[in-house]
Amino acid sequence: MITGAYAHGLDQSPANHVPLTPLGFLDRAALVHPERVAIIHGELQRTWAQTRDRCYQLASALVGRGIHPGDTVSILSPNTPAMVEAHFGIPLSGAILNTINHRLDAEGIAFILRHSECKLLLVDCEYMAVASAALERLEHRPALINIRDHLAAAGADSQVPDYESLLAEGDATFEGVWPSTEWQPIALNYTSGTTGDPKGVVVSHRGTYLMSLLQMTNWSLPQAPRYLWTLPMFHANGWCFTWAITAAAGTHVCLRKVSAETVFDGIAKHQVDHFCAAPTVMAMIANASGFRALPHPVRVLTAGSPPPATVLDAVVSMGFQVDHVYGITEVAGTPISCVWQDGWDGLPDREKAKIRVRQGARAAAFEGLMVADAQTLQPVPHDGQTTGELLLRGNTVMMGYLKNPTATQNAFEGGWFHTGDVAVVHADGYMQITDRCKDVIISGGENISSVEIEDVLHSHAAVLHAAVVAQPDNKWGEVPCAFIELKSETLSPTEAELIAYCQARLARYKCPSRVIFMELPKTATGKIQKFILRQQAGSREAILRLASSG
Amino acid sequence: MITGAYAHGLDQSPANHVPLTPLGFLDRAALVHPERVAIIHGELQRTWAQTRDRCYQLASALVGRGIHPGDTVSILSPNTPAMVEAHFGIPLSGAILNTINHRLDAEGIAFILRHSECKLLLVDCEYMAVASAALERLEHRPALINIRDHLAAAGADSQVPDYESLLAEGDATFEGVWPSTEWQPIALNYTSGTTGDPKGVVVSHRGTYLMSLLQMTNWSLPQAPRYLWTLPMFHANGWCFTWAITAAAGTHVCLRKVSAETVFDGIAKHQVDHFCAAPTVMAMIANASGFRALPHPVRVLTAGSPPPATVLDAVVSMGFQVDHVYGITEVAGTPISCVWQDGWDGLPDREKAKIRVRQGARAAAFEGLMVADAQTLQPVPHDGQTTGELLLRGNTVMMGYLKNPTATQNAFEGGWFHTGDVAVVHADGYMQITDRCKDVIISGGENISSVEIEDVLHSHAAVLHAAVVAQPDNKWGEVPCAFIELKSETLSPTEAELIAYCQARLARYKCPSRVIFMELPKTATGKIQKFILRQQAGSREAILRLASSG
Repeated sequence: MITGAYAHGLDQSPANHVPLTPLGFLDRAALVHPERVAIIHGELQRTWAQTRDRCYQLASALVGRGIHPGDTVSILSPNTPAMVEAHFGIPLSGAILNTINHRLDAEGIAFILRHSECKLLLVDCEYMAVASAALERLEHRPALINIRDHLAAAGADSQVPDYESLLAEGDATFEGVWPSTEWQPIALNYTSGTTGDPKGVVVSHRGTYLMSLLQMTNWSLPQAPRYLWTLPMFHANGWCFTWAITAAAGTHVCLRKVSAETVFDGIAKHQVDHFCAAPTVMAMIANASGFRALPHPVRVLTAGSPPPATVLDAVVSMGFQVDHVYGITEVAGTPISCVWQDGWDGLPDREKAKIRVRQGARAAAFEGLMVADAQTLQPVPHDGQTTGELLLRGNTVMMGYLKNPTATQNAFEGGWFHTGDVAVVHADGYMQITDRCKDVIISGGENISSVEIEDVLHSHAAVLHAAVVAQPDNKWGEVPCAFIELKSETLSPTEAELIAYCQARLARYKCPSRVIFMELPKTATGKIQKFILRQQAGSREAILRLASSG
Repeated sequence: MITGAYAHGLDQSPANHVPLTPLGFLDRAALVHPERVAIIHGELQRTWAQTRDRCYQLASALVGRGIHPGDTVSILSPNTPAMVEAHFGIPLSGAILNTINHRLDAEGIAFILRHSECKLLLVDCEYMAVASAALERLEHRPALINIRDHLAAAGADSQVPDYESLLAEGDATFEGVWPSTEWQPIALNYTSGTTGDPKGVVVSHRGTYLMSLLQMTNWSLPQAPRYLWTLPMFHANGWCFTWAITAAAGTHVCLRKVSAETVFDGIAKHQVDHFCAAPTVMAMIANASGFRALPHPVRVLTAGSPPPATVLDAVVSMGFQVDHVYGITEVAGTPISCVWQDGWDGLPDREKAKIRVRQGARAAAFEGLMVADAQTLQPVPHDGQTTGELLLRGNTVMMGYLKNPTATQNAFEGGWFHTGDVAVVHADGYMQITDRCKDVIISGGENISSVEIEDVLHSHAAVLHAAVVAQPDNKWGEVPCAFIELKSETLSPTEAELIAYCQARLARYKCPSRVIFMELPKTATGKIQKFILRQQAGSREAILRLASSG
């Protein structure tokens, strides 16, 4: 501790210590750019002044309906204007914002509503049926609000109170319920369930504020970006871009459903210059048949499961400025990125492609990253070979898992957040994920990286998605089993052809013993659900049944 | 407070709560861009890897010399590589960094060394004589280190230990003394003394970290900026750009002495694309005779005393992209800026010039701004007329004044930091400084803004600098008295001509009663020292004496 001259008279006061929160970005955008378009949704456009007022109306109306600080208010919606508004209006009521994955079934939604003790649920009209089915499963049902959307396929259910009527109950001059400390929850995000066991990730005002600034600084976000919502806002609050784009007084271009066509339309019609993309979205773009040249520079952040090098390369060669970042719901965004170094431009294309798939280094605004033995915390050597678990430490890391102190304690063991990802560190200090901890295949005592095999399979012209998991084997313990989704049915290699393709490029013991062709099961954010594939790889009957029905 | 589900099991831990500090930017720059040039100083260039090692060596050597957490270590230097290194190496030793204005005299330096209880003083060789004279005045003398600089005019004093030898004592693998909480002092900056009463502004790790991110986001700083050090680093740590440029892994282009020529040289030779400029530097550029067209876009932040519209206009018309910002040492940088709004480009030039001199609005990363009655805290109407004091509240506001609890308490009265600046708020919410509190002239009961008169005087072709203060008057109480520094002696208007010029453009009662031609007294950061002029305006004899010797 500090002693001497600095020990006294330098205390915190309301003048010099204010709880960090992303909520203040809204008032500032409305003050500085009241007439700038804040939100575009089809033909609908709203300014920052209008958006600000609607958010405060929402907050005021929620308080009027009896919402208290610490209550959970949930929203089930694709990327619509109401989702942007929810990111300000719900926390400004003092409630915690819980965005729900709209691809979940009624059972999955019911689990979240029950576990989060949700008091009020906003539902996009297209998802009213599944929401109603979820509510039927609950003993304590939250109040229900129906968000009509002129771009939604289904009509609204007239029995349920309407979002616009809710807003009309509110007062735009409401001052908001602001956090009394920055270590208070702002949002609750359930993990997408690659393990089938959803946990409620609680993030703080402090953490999301700092992640917003991290995104702005690490991506050198310009003022007034025109940002396309390809990434679901329900996914870790869209990596905090819901708040960061507001801080930059940019324009949120909403999107109910992502396709290569809607992306190119957004670029052409709305001058979109920034978006984030999961690997599946990158694959859509890479395979877009009617590709039009970009009318202006477009910058893309991509993350998720390690993207195949071929997909990254294809999108880069189309003229997109792609940055490869890494994140996980528990760190509220993407604090790690493969920063392009001086001199790399001169490397051969093959070298560049190899480097581009690395996850890279911590952002300047993130504190700690280490690849280490998860027990001893001994860092691995920077040899690009030795694997360890990726451990993170920083101010954007979650507060913990809701009502799950054991999982929280395990996740933070030793004072580091355990990502569950296996990685190596290259000589230049850049980290590369080689696998999820549970995806490593151990064959005859050797560790095999499923990602390495998947990368080879992705380089095959016919392969759209590839996923490799361990299959029990009497002799070797485990052997690799590959699941393949093809680009089209016109070009369809046989199992033997793909195995031979791998044998020409990989050590023999790493080659898949079996190849199954099917549409791969994915989470709402485009991650392949390996736990389903693992179940299937464990039983030949199950695989055949699924492959024939797929 | 939060109750219910979120009340338990979501505590701070080393994994999710790390003290915010700008010191971590250094390791990250060295990891990601080890071979990029970090510092340019004449012919000298050092990479980020080298700079990182030197900073840790400095920290280690200071600890080896007995520096303890909470000690003050001072540096007296122009903008040299040692100044950049001091911003990391000194705090990494656990000490508080105290940068001293190198234009102070021995008495002024002695005051700071005594008041800050300085333990060790690093001195650029050119300032060794004044430093030695300062030390002679002290009862407890700090250790002295001589920084040799190949670009300095004076040679080094061989009796005094050398900076490079000090570094050689240190160990680059030293891990650093990191703050145990973010609410710890990192730097001590004495106010530049427009009032003649220097106070020690203590800023925290938290505040400077957040100001660094504020500068990056508010200016949309790109990665790898090439930043020219025209702004003294001793002035509020260069508005935190010492740390922010490092966070962006940019290049610090050092500069011992600023002139229009060195600015244009930096742009041409070192591809400088960003710099900050006090109004005097802006005036130098505006009046540069041998102006060369800019070879690439160059962005400028300008702040300080309200810049004359004519100077701003001139620099903009030369092609510089100028942003007008506002700050004060007590807020660690410039959290307010005149953000250019959509639609302003279409305004007539005269309108644009009027808008450009406004200070504007808070940055997205700054929490509170209010123009209000300093006693009642009642905000002024947004009418562009009613004046109040500019009050600020936010996380970059200082911890307080060192060993001055009364001044700290006064500054933070009512939970807001009182800037001492008088301002109005325009209808669009943009704030404009009209005066320092003590610079308002009250004539016949009417408030007269000295800035308004100065703006008119600056629009005269012959005027380089103008400063207007109150002069005691038997009839009116006070009348305006103008001090004028001319651009050259070839064009020299008379007192009567300048008064007539004002009369054609201002209400009669606002026109100066007297005009004095002289070189204006300025602080090291280029602010005109009005307290000296006020003393002089109070006595006709004093003015004449100074004018004839000037």
